[in-house]
Amino acid sequence: MTFELPLWNPARRAARMNPSILREILKVTDRPGILSMAGGLPSPDTFPVEAMRAACDKVLRETPREALQYAASEGFMPLREWVAKHLRGQGMTVDADQVLITTGSQQGLDLVAKVLVDAGAPVAVEAPTYLGALQAFAPMEPIFASIPSDADGPLPEAVAALPHDAPGTRFMYVLPNFQNPSGRVMPEARREALIAAAKQARVPLVEDNPYGDLWYDTPPPKTLASRWPEGVIYLGSFSKVLAPGLRLGYVVAPRELFPKLLQAKQAADLHTPGFNQRVVYEVIRDGFLDQHVPTIRDRYRAQRDAMREALTQHLPPGSVWQAPSGGMFCWVRLPEGCDAVALLPKAVDEGVAFVPGAAFYAHAPDPRTVRLSFVTLTPDQIHTAVAIFGMVLKRHLTEDQPEPTP
Amino acid sequence: MTFELPLWNPARRAARMNPSILREILKVTDRPGILSMAGGLPSPDTFPVEAMRAACDKVLRETPREALQYAASEGFMPLREWVAKHLRGQGMTVDADQVLITTGSQQGLDLVAKVLVDAGAPVAVEAPTYLGALQAFAPMEPIFASIPSDADGPLPEAVAALPHDAPGTRFMYVLPNFQNPSGRVMPEARREALIAAAKQARVPLVEDNPYGDLWYDTPPPKTLASRWPEGVIYLGSFSKVLAPGLRLGYVVAPRELFPKLLQAKQAADLHTPGFNQRVVYEVIRDGFLDQHVPTIRDRYRAQRDAMREALTQHLPPGSVWQAPSGGMFCWVRLPEGCDAVALLPKAVDEGVAFVPGAAFYAHAPDPRTVRLSFVTLTPDQIHTAVAIFGMVLKRHLTEDQPEPTP
Repeated sequence: MTFELPLWNPARRAARMNPSILREILKVTDRPGILSMAGGLPSPDTFPVEAMRAACDKVLRETPREALQYAASEGFMPLREWVAKHLRGQGMTVDADQVLITTGSQQGLDLVAKVLVDAGAPVAVEAPTYLGALQAFAPMEPIFASIPSDADGPLPEAVAALPHDAPGTRFMYVLPNFQNPSGRVMPEARREALIAAAKQARVPLVEDNPYGDLWYDTPPPKTLASRWPEGVIYLGSFSKVLAPGLRLGYVVAPRELFPKLLQAKQAADLHTPGFNQRVVYEVIRDGFLDQHVPTIRDRYRAQRDAMREALTQHLPPGSVWQAPSGGMFCWVRLPEGCDAVALLPKAVDEGVAFVPGAAFYAHAPDPRTVRLSFVTLTPDQIHTAVAIFGMVLKRHLTEDQPEPTP
Repeated sequence: MTFELPLWNPARRAARMNPSILREILKVTDRPGILSMAGGLPSPDTFPVEAMRAACDKVLRETPREALQYAASEGFMPLREWVAKHLRGQGMTVDADQVLITTGSQQGLDLVAKVLVDAGAPVAVEAPTYLGALQAFAPMEPIFASIPSDADGPLPEAVAALPHDAPGTRFMYVLPNFQNPSGRVMPEARREALIAAAKQARVPLVEDNPYGDLWYDTPPPKTLASRWPEGVIYLGSFSKVLAPGLRLGYVVAPRELFPKLLQAKQAADLHTPGFNQRVVYEVIRDGFLDQHVPTIRDRYRAQRDAMREALTQHLPPGSVWQAPSGGMFCWVRLPEGCDAVALLPKAVDEGVAFVPGAAFYAHAPDPRTVRLSFVTLTPDQIHTAVAIFGMVLKRHLTEDQPEPTP
């Protein structure tokens, strides 16, 4: 007996799910000996292993039954209160009952898309933007609107022109601090202009802030959420200041949206592991991050500085880049005629990896861009990696261009 | 300046997200002093706290950097291998590369719906069925087809009649072992008949098996997946045999579906906490569950027996129920004229809680049904709780029916 029809019929949205280029690259570059500037992997030297061990022990001694049982979908209340207080300290207006604990801030993106995105509705994103956000939103089948950006962030006039009429631009996704991938921080004036433009267009914002604490020169301006509480969903994470393997993030939502986000959370995984929430709360409750985060800043600042020096030294003329003042990434535009995707295998052959910038665009990728992470390698390794990268790039330019620009 | 239009525009699917009745009831019944037969909360006495503590310590001593770093979306390979071997031991044909580790098996339901369900496509469910599955599927906007069931499970003739033509019944969701909420186990003959009917209709199956290890009389027949590997997605969980607060489950998928489920997983939360995966692997790797699960069975068997005795003693005539041979729940049909939703507040007033069965139907709820969990309370508490439940029920029958049936 043969059948004409397939047994399994994937949903239409499945066609919009694709392997993460980034994660595929990470697999290749996981090989021993590869100097990887590809992944945004925090340095494991920053993981507070001793504090974690003490906290695990304490939680399993004092509240094992609560920590290992099913728990509230909203999250562990003391942790929600900590988050609210922490954000109030940064000028935001937040109560604990607006804080939803998520399984990493990636889950926040998934929940936001589920609650706000209908198939065919526009969602505005920066160009370039965080690849994981594009992947989280895509299954809900939005039409992406790419907002052109300059060195200060998305252009307010493009935001002001976003449509509000049905089906309505459901939100604009924006990463104001040390953006992944571009590294740029949005200055005070651009934040104000962006908010004004978003209000004018009646387009609410989803503000993603995983890197805000990782500033190396001066702290970034106040969050967008602090300027427009009713118009911004705010996403935060413990991945960069503690450890990503715990998968702990949070969403702060305007009150009118919180119940639907909570229901989406219940349906998605019932709740984020209560054990992890209690362990992290034990680690941070008495001000641990006040001492810990500055040590991360010092480490990454030195690595950022090493990358700045190395890029200055090794990149060929025609390369455009700016050292970021925070975060994890340096964004480089290669000389004319370069294709970063074609460059990658050549770099990997020489033992160096990076991410072609094309991965970070919803439309019209710029093939000349690359994202270099400076948080995983030591300063010495960064010097070596960038030297090799520069060497491969120069060779690539010579090979591919019969008459190379000097 | 006033605006006519709302700032936030929820997606159409948000209208299908509702507060979990179950979780709302759990909040009420969390009050101290309430004897709750409502939640399916495993007894905390079964949580292997000492083994967990030793495992946390070992993981944080030996592999802290790996356990706390970003990790593969597929899951921790040794844990995937353990799952595959464990399932092969139960007669299934599974390789580790078909095992996707999920953030609880609830997430498996979310991923399956994302990959397979288009708005308006039919999804078949049992009547009654697991509420959390209805909630996980609903955001993808299926049309539910409720399959009538008898004491052996869903009726094969109803399954055989499911439509395969476009948009196609995307799958039938089925819980063969000690179903939540009904407690029934599907016998061998019904499994074979169900598979035959599903093959005839070309409707694949999603088999959810959180309770399979919790048998108290005889082990259940072989899984559906072992009978039709290419036509069944299988979901498993560590919540009932270790602890739910770790949020660890898994999906076993036919090879053609695995890549899309993996991509949906990446987009949903990048990966399940690697720390939790490594800790659980440490706990179970050397056969811990072979000793541990029988102790859970002994405990719950005694509680099941207590509930059987108490129900026999305290339920009024006209009540219909059968003690389950495994799992966590006893399903009771109350005498004619009873409305379990109306009964609940009266029971709570007397210090006892349960879940009205109406919550577990996609269509046409039976208002006379209730679900009673026997895993959270001790045998003595079960006797007390059921005695109060019986007393409230008898009073309810007298109050609401001027001429009560004797």
